[in-house]
Amino acid sequence: MTSPGATIQRDSEGRLQHLITLEGLTRDEITGLLDLAEFYVRPPGELPARDQSLAGRTVANLFFEPSTRTRVSFEIAARRLGADVVNLDMQTSSRAKGETVLDTIYTLQAMHADILVMRDAEPGLPAFVAQHVAPHVCILNAGEAHLSHPTQGLLDALTVRQVKGDFSDLRILIAGDIAHSRVARSAWQVFTTLGAREVRIAAPDDLMPAADEFPGASRYTSLDEAIEGVDVVMTLRIQRERMKRALFPDERTYHHEFGITAARMRKAKPDAIVMHPGPMNRDVEISSEVADGPQSVIQRQVTNGVAVRMAVLATMVRNVQARRRL
Amino acid sequence: MTSPGATIQRDSEGRLQHLITLEGLTRDEITGLLDLAEFYVRPPGELPARDQSLAGRTVANLFFEPSTRTRVSFEIAARRLGADVVNLDMQTSSRAKGETVLDTIYTLQAMHADILVMRDAEPGLPAFVAQHVAPHVCILNAGEAHLSHPTQGLLDALTVRQVKGDFSDLRILIAGDIAHSRVARSAWQVFTTLGAREVRIAAPDDLMPAADEFPGASRYTSLDEAIEGVDVVMTLRIQRERMKRALFPDERTYHHEFGITAARMRKAKPDAIVMHPGPMNRDVEISSEVADGPQSVIQRQVTNGVAVRMAVLATMVRNVQARRRL
Amino acid sequence: MTSPGATIQRDSEGRLQHLITLEGLTRDEITGLLDLAEFYVRPPGELPARDQSLAGRTVANLFFEPSTRTRVSFEIAARRLGADVVNLDMQTSSRAKGETVLDTIYTLQAMHADILVMRDAEPGLPAFVAQHVAPHVCILNAGEAHLSHPTQGLLDALTVRQVKGDFSDLRILIAGDIAHSRVARSAWQVFTTLGAREVRIAAPDDLMPAADEFPGASRYTSLDEAIEGVDVVMTLRIQRERMKRALFPDERTYHHEFGITAARMRKAKPDAIVMHPGPMNRDVEISSEVADGPQSVIQRQVTNGVAVRMAVLATMVRNVQARRRL
Repeated sequence: MTSPGATIQRDSEGRLQHLITLEGLTRDEITGLLDLAEFYVRPPGELPARDQSLAGRTVANLFFEPSTRTRVSFEIAARRLGADVVNLDMQTSSRAKGETVLDTIYTLQAMHADILVMRDAEPGLPAFVAQHVAPHVCILNAGEAHLSHPTQGLLDALTVRQVKGDFSDLRILIAGDIAHSRVARSAWQVFTTLGAREVRIAAPDDLMPAADEFPGASRYTSLDEAIEGVDVVMTLRIQRERMKRALFPDERTYHHEFGITAARMRKAKPDAIVMHPGPMNRDVEISSEVADGPQSVIQRQVTNGVAVRMAVLATMVRNVQARRRL
Repeated sequence: MTSPGATIQRDSEGRLQHLITLEGLTRDEITGLLDLAEFYVRPPGELPARDQSLAGRTVANLFFEPSTRTRVSFEIAARRLGADVVNLDMQTSSRAKGETVLDTIYTLQAMHADILVMRDAEPGLPAFVAQHVAPHVCILNAGEAHLSHPTQGLLDALTVRQVKGDFSDLRILIAGDIAHSRVARSAWQVFTTLGAREVRIAAPDDLMPAADEFPGASRYTSLDEAIEGVDVVMTLRIQRERMKRALFPDERTYHHEFGITAARMRKAKPDAIVMHPGPMNRDVEISSEVADGPQSVIQRQVTNGVAVRMAVLATMVRNVQARRRL
Repeated sequence: MTSPGATIQRDSEGRLQHLITLEGLTRDEITGLLDLAEFYVRPPGELPARDQSLAGRTVANLFFEPSTRTRVSFEIAARRLGADVVNLDMQTSSRAKGETVLDTIYTLQAMHADILVMRDAEPGLPAFVAQHVAPHVCILNAGEAHLSHPTQGLLDALTVRQVKGDFSDLRILIAGDIAHSRVARSAWQVFTTLGAREVRIAAPDDLMPAADEFPGASRYTSLDEAIEGVDVVMTLRIQRERMKRALFPDERTYHHEFGITAARMRKAKPDAIVMHPGPMNRDVEISSEVADGPQSVIQRQVTNGVAVRMAVLATMVRNVQARRRL
């Protein structure tokens, strides 16, 4: 089954108008986005890359679910491409006054805001909105329920590619609260499309996704078994109420069973890397020793996040311009 | 009786230093602002107009009453003219610490913020502040109690003019909670100054303004009678507590008596347009069918809102420069 | 005893990498900062100074303790130097999600935010963070507990210097809640370093700092005695709960004993100036007559605040570049 977003996000020529999900993106499309992102990466301490790809454009951030980290990453990416950026606090805005989301979108569109970055705790909003906006307006999904977080998936892929190169030999483990994780879904999607040899998912029984999700992934309920011989360990943020559901009474017990520790890392390949989407619960899903250790690429993920968002923004604007020339 | 703002907003040469009210603006002044705004309008899908009229200037948004929509419109307008923009959340700022509003204004003025955009639920603040700032500082009223919302009036006039041209043949209806509406007052002011043939106001008895307000306007308590043969239908946002006061027990009853519906629109002229200042209560003061139908110019109002604010900002700066050259 | 910040804020060459405290800054260093700030000062009504010293840089404002005034001052300063600025609301950000402050800092650093402006109600954070960031990242302390507010101290010094010139003849009084005031500590530090003839502190007994603080300062519990013959009167904001602790039952009584009034000002030198860091409690620690009178330089302090912050930002970036060239 194809999600509606996968179809809706393309224009009549098949070009991406929106980025709602990584589902349906070809290996070439993903590689193209990662190549452009790589072009925007700079080492720490150097000035960040800048250009004027978005000069004259207005990017609006609509975060119905708050996220300082992702909002700032998109805001910085857009500014470094020369865009104007406006932030709307959707908790206190006219949604409260009873305005529909679609009317808010139409209002922003009428103000010539042409790129709308949205995050929502409920599923469906980005695809719904994308069906109603004008052909020159792009919707970028910055996190949708448990379903999709496409720029996170791309930054994860870029990070793995930088360290490991080709995906065809890689065994990649995603561990933690898979059932509720948009990060896991988008990462699985992109790793699969890029031809990873194996994607493993490891979760406590109650946090394991339905059987028809993550097709092709190997499933483990023991982290110790799952981590054996992998090249990449990606762990996920766990929330206290989810731990309880998975029968871990406290953070200490969760750490004992599902935390990424130095001892566990010794079961992975010696050159394995460790990833986390942030913000971390230190010494819950990951030990500080590992998070700050030599195998960690967690800060590199953050740097790549800005570069990936720059690449996505620039690509969407290029596609709009191509549509207009037809 | 002239409101204090009408006098205070002019400098000793009679030029506008502030924009507090549309009262007292001549037809030529309003036409000049609309002409400049028209220059800034771009069709949907084109890049918005930009110039550097406000280069080096700092615009501060002080919203004592929150409004994402109006704040974003001013913010976008100012950025497209090259200004720096700072947003102050006046709900959590030093007003809470006991600082007087005037001290906040003096502080911003001392930081070389030269254009202060303010909205307040109480009457009187813009005129009070305008009396105390330096000659190079402009106060723009972005909504004052039930009294004045000058840039809204101007965008409404621009929208009517774009579709209908000359005002001298136009019958214009403003319908809804007139008593509490700054939008109605500023619209009535500008339509009257531009020479509309007739301005009608329609409101339930309890939401009708005092007899000495809206001089020259025809008054109706029946929307069905008021809408007969008009060229322009402007409806207003209604709040639940005001409905109750006007003896409408619920939204459905209000809609039945005072909602703009397709059936009612058939009593207006066939080419009548429908306007709403937003945010809309769909199927309360306006049916979705009308709001999204071919007679609606609601999104055009939003586009014009940015253009009008650009025109006002650019004009205020030009006037400051003229004062300085003397 | 030297505070840790005084050492930590310098790089291995002894250049300032961070600005955490004014402690340990030489007279030449302070004079250099004030000279550069003076270069950035413009009279009211003129366009503010601008340059591109921070072009390509990203400044992040992290205010764990809210302060619209100081945040806006830093934001305006950074924009006028060409920086991108992002504001993080640390009350609602991922600190709430359990992320450590250090992880937030590492995240911003990984996004190439290279200047982090932080304010916190607790002591220790700026120095702690400064020990962990990369060599190209600057921490600017925008207010730390009762301890330090270095840009405030510098703007106070600039204001005194503009009016009075050399410090060696000056008697300067700091009056009010000295014990809890970072403003008082930073001002005392800078006035002492610049060679003021005498710094007096006046506070009610319960608001007097410990005996080993403010070495060299003359201590007074009577404002009337303290103000005799001084050139500069700096009063401090008082909080109601602190008044109570100092046995003043209400604002009126505090004003009677510790308020700066016109009558008291007649005991100071005839050309004495009056300063307040804002926001003011009018007619509590200072009478409106004095605050708005000819001896007041309070608005000038605000103008100087932006200029000083521009000077500090530009200097920090210059020092980063010098480190890189080695």
